[in-house]
Amino acid sequence: MQALIEAIRSQGHGVGSQIVKVDSFLNHRLDTGLLYEMGKAFALRYADEHPDLVLTVEASGIALALATAHALGDIPVVFAKKSAAANQSGDMAEEKIFSFTRGQECVIRVDLRYIPAGSKVLIVDDFLANGEALRGLIAILKRAGAHLIGVGIAIEKGFQPGGQALRAQGIPLLSLAVIEEIRDGHIRFRDTDQH
Amino acid sequence: MQALIEAIRSQGHGVGSQIVKVDSFLNHRLDTGLLYEMGKAFALRYADEHPDLVLTVEASGIALALATAHALGDIPVVFAKKSAAANQSGDMAEEKIFSFTRGQECVIRVDLRYIPAGSKVLIVDDFLANGEALRGLIAILKRAGAHLIGVGIAIEKGFQPGGQALRAQGIPLLSLAVIEEIRDGHIRFRDTDQH
Repeated sequence: MQALIEAIRSQGHGVGSQIVKVDSFLNHRLDTGLLYEMGKAFALRYADEHPDLVLTVEASGIALALATAHALGDIPVVFAKKSAAANQSGDMAEEKIFSFTRGQECVIRVDLRYIPAGSKVLIVDDFLANGEALRGLIAILKRAGAHLIGVGIAIEKGFQPGGQALRAQGIPLLSLAVIEEIRDGHIRFRDTDQH
Repeated sequence: MQALIEAIRSQGHGVGSQIVKVDSFLNHRLDTGLLYEMGKAFALRYADEHPDLVLTVEASGIALALATAHALGDIPVVFAKKSAAANQSGDMAEEKIFSFTRGQECVIRVDLRYIPAGSKVLIVDDFLANGEALRGLIAILKRAGAHLIGVGIAIEKGFQPGGQALRAQGIPLLSLAVIEEIRDGHIRFRDTDQH
């Protein structure tokens, strides 16, 4: 999406070869107008599948998920909670995921009462890199007996394997910006019209 | 706000005398339509003050802040980041706050580049109890040289001192639902038309 790519170009900062900082519009300060444009793009792509809810992970996925859910006619959002330790209780489904950014394992947790069996779920998140968070969310959906209709990502790091793994599984994936390479502070994008 | 009070009555769970669980529409699953109604209520109350941005704390304040910012014409949101330990760097303003719910101190942190000096700020959060998070946010605004135009809260625990302290300081406060008492699982509300 051109507006997102422009925002990354003008405000994003490449750090080393792996990290792009987008705190000024996506991860700390939120560019509200841009978030609604992104939400509309996901809604346009997935509305025909009639998702029942949007699933994401706290904290920075929440804004994008809400904007998407609004564009889809105010369907509910469920955000997985993240914590350092497991704490099984009641109807909670938990998955361990490894955060490469933080270099540590963490647990994501969803109350299965909020993901009805048979429901159609759209997953939305701000970043896709190794795909660990998505792997955990998809595992939770399976335990819930819900159907994944697709995934919407703001920024995919195309040089990390998460996106390719999803596509190889035949999971519909819309990444609004795909970064091909970060080098010397310069960010190079994939031509996203190709997929 | 009647829709919020109805949601708390029908879906909220009083736990002991201090806690109300609203995971089904505000803290884990989000009732998107209700969030936009709440955002519109804050916008209606504060639009005449022309806020430049909405400030909140991750994670559960983000959705409410975004809905409010959207209703105010897509002004930006800044969410304070929360962590267990201090980690001073660059333009980060940090405040220690005590979480009574968790029984521990934590640090909230805002990059001051995103709160321009002289800007008019509306603070929004999901809960107001002892007011520790708000105290921290207000201290950060002072360091930024920004103006607090008011506070919007979804659920105020009227039996805890945060709301009274803000009102005593003359800070405009709109709480959409004020809980007077939680006893034996029953939740009693204050008549919010009184303030």
